[in-house]
Amino acid sequence: MERRLWRKGAMLPDPHHLAALDAADPLGFARARFLLPDGLVYLDGNSLGPLPATAPALLAQAVADEWGQGLIRSWNDAGWIDLPVTLGAAIAPIIGAEPDAVVACDSVSINLFKLASAALALRPDRRTILMEAEDFPTDAYVMQGLARLAGVTLRRVPRADLPDALNDDVALLLLTHAHYLSGQVHDMAGMSAAAQAVGALTLWDLSHSAGAIAVQLDADGADFATGCGYKYLNGGPGAPAFAYVARRHWATCEPALTGWMGHAAPFDFAADHEPAPAARRLLTGTPPILAMRALEAGIDTFAGIDMAAAEAKSRALVQLFAAGAAAIAGVTVDPLPTGRHGAHCIIRHPQARRVMNALIARGVIGDCRPPDAMRFGFPALTTRFADIGLALAALQAVLASGEWQDDRFAPKGVVS
Amino acid sequence: MERRLWRKGAMLPDPHHLAALDAADPLGFARARFLLPDGLVYLDGNSLGPLPATAPALLAQAVADEWGQGLIRSWNDAGWIDLPVTLGAAIAPIIGAEPDAVVACDSVSINLFKLASAALALRPDRRTILMEAEDFPTDAYVMQGLARLAGVTLRRVPRADLPDALNDDVALLLLTHAHYLSGQVHDMAGMSAAAQAVGALTLWDLSHSAGAIAVQLDADGADFATGCGYKYLNGGPGAPAFAYVARRHWATCEPALTGWMGHAAPFDFAADHEPAPAARRLLTGTPPILAMRALEAGIDTFAGIDMAAAEAKSRALVQLFAAGAAAIAGVTVDPLPTGRHGAHCIIRHPQARRVMNALIARGVIGDCRPPDAMRFGFPALTTRFADIGLALAALQAVLASGEWQDDRFAPKGVVS
Repeated sequence: MERRLWRKGAMLPDPHHLAALDAADPLGFARARFLLPDGLVYLDGNSLGPLPATAPALLAQAVADEWGQGLIRSWNDAGWIDLPVTLGAAIAPIIGAEPDAVVACDSVSINLFKLASAALALRPDRRTILMEAEDFPTDAYVMQGLARLAGVTLRRVPRADLPDALNDDVALLLLTHAHYLSGQVHDMAGMSAAAQAVGALTLWDLSHSAGAIAVQLDADGADFATGCGYKYLNGGPGAPAFAYVARRHWATCEPALTGWMGHAAPFDFAADHEPAPAARRLLTGTPPILAMRALEAGIDTFAGIDMAAAEAKSRALVQLFAAGAAAIAGVTVDPLPTGRHGAHCIIRHPQARRVMNALIARGVIGDCRPPDAMRFGFPALTTRFADIGLALAALQAVLASGEWQDDRFAPKGVVS
Repeated sequence: MERRLWRKGAMLPDPHHLAALDAADPLGFARARFLLPDGLVYLDGNSLGPLPATAPALLAQAVADEWGQGLIRSWNDAGWIDLPVTLGAAIAPIIGAEPDAVVACDSVSINLFKLASAALALRPDRRTILMEAEDFPTDAYVMQGLARLAGVTLRRVPRADLPDALNDDVALLLLTHAHYLSGQVHDMAGMSAAAQAVGALTLWDLSHSAGAIAVQLDADGADFATGCGYKYLNGGPGAPAFAYVARRHWATCEPALTGWMGHAAPFDFAADHEPAPAARRLLTGTPPILAMRALEAGIDTFAGIDMAAAEAKSRALVQLFAAGAAAIAGVTVDPLPTGRHGAHCIIRHPQARRVMNALIARGVIGDCRPPDAMRFGFPALTTRFADIGLALAALQAVLASGEWQDDRFAPKGVVS
């Protein structure tokens, strides 16, 4: 493929070939499901999915009609009370789960705490939570807090040492499926089996997997999982996350963090907690309905999308971009993982924030991770092959011109 | 006052007098800040505040412009990243707190867990969480889960026994400021002092106080507090809650439930958790921006509102309604608490749900609590004195006609 895409001696792929790839793209139709600003190449990698075309009307109706006119009647009449369960069931096929195993609720941080606390309760004689060093910070922070409260040990080891660190004191193995920087993808079936072999449970953070690559929670033997609604699921800024519990734990899973919405009969106002059936027991407080409606619009963008095809397309996009960037002077490209990888890649420059600001000024958006990483994401539903050419041309121009050294591209703002 | 309001021998207050009270109401202007359906008497007590007039445009802008056009740039450019703190500071004066002591985040259930876990860490040698029996269920469920995980005891005693139950094993006293059924209001200063005298900390659930009655967290010596955004603060269905920590605990308060948004430098991606200053350390995961924008509209409805005046008005409305209902055959009215009370009252009927459904059909909305309670709320910002007359007339008609026995008013739906 590369031989046809790259003109001899050129750093940029041939636009005609990119156009041909777009014309042949079986997922090309999905981009029309979004409202993307004209002229923008949106390769955020991925802190916020773009706006689904149905979201503005759905939100407007939720605000004016359901809230404004229906008022509290909408908890029944508009199905508000069931949204965590109905949206969970809608997310389920995207991550290879049966419908009742998933609910939409809270944030990834909160769900990690809930699910890890449930795992500790299921393995009361074990005192270790095992996770990968260098994983996304919130996962470590949440586990540090839980370990302190529960009196267990959090052990963080490099990826290569994980198999050896699995022993009969490990209650829970927490893994991020697709790493937020390297894009490396764990073998879910293999790691689940290895954990199960020593009696440990697994908790999977799918933040960079759900909606990005193929996930088979049920088939691969996962115990628990959570992931973002606001990244590849396109659920809006800070959208509710989701939480998964495998069927074999439905009757016994009891998170330490609970609330009335996870009660078997919340409107009986019973004095003692009694967990609801299946994943519903993972709910806590009253669900944020407006955020849920936006998440609904995001999930709807996956109608008819085969996640294996989405992964294959993102893989092709990532590889094309990485190959092109590797040929541009001034940046280095992190080696792509062998085997499967996530829908993003990392390009490094000592002044990553400045280079990214200059790229954004040219209409190409990615994000940054300190100290020197630019992260570009290539979600299959919205990215065109032509965007690769545009992004590489912008990167080449920013670096060749040295414009990133301009004062207006100095780092500012909290979020990178 | 009553002598002028009630016509001799009549069960309903004189509409002319009610109109005069509305004309003289110093808070009457606030109703125009909301979009309420024509002809509806909305006395929900209070599961969902009505729609602020500014909310539809604010939400539409957040969706179309901030999300759709700004995309990830809006985390800086639209101030998204600071919304939990800026909205917390806006809530602060409504509950008598200094600005940096409050953040908007998560749900009441989640915040109860966070704050109670922080209290346990501050009192490591104590093994008891004390709360009032018959408090709102989620408070008990959350404490049951926390107590199990932390290995402490949850003790629930009747209100009258609370002072005697305070001893040197109590780490935390959890109280609801205004009770969700009786409307009884705890003496916050007195109970805080009593707790402090034995070295215990206090956590206040303000769900039925914040935006309903006057609250003075700082002045009354509270340690921690949380409360709903979706009730009297008018923040929308399932709106983010708020969390408060008194200044004297800012440097030492460390919830076991945390996340990257509560980190001192979230975008440094450090390996270990380091709490952010003041109440910001109570944040966990990525904030739900659309829900935050709706909450912002709700908080804005309190601009220029004196909460002491709001409490006085709601008090007058509650007393007027309770007196009228007491004279209607077929229902009983729970005695109003002596001293201060919340902005709601309870009317009982063996078929409460049927009676409420019949009232709703007549355009009067309250809510129900099993088995026999109808709860009516009288928020000062939206309730007119004339609404009391309309609601009482509807209640009288529903009971006198026996129409509540009609099949169409049979209980249905999950939420009551």
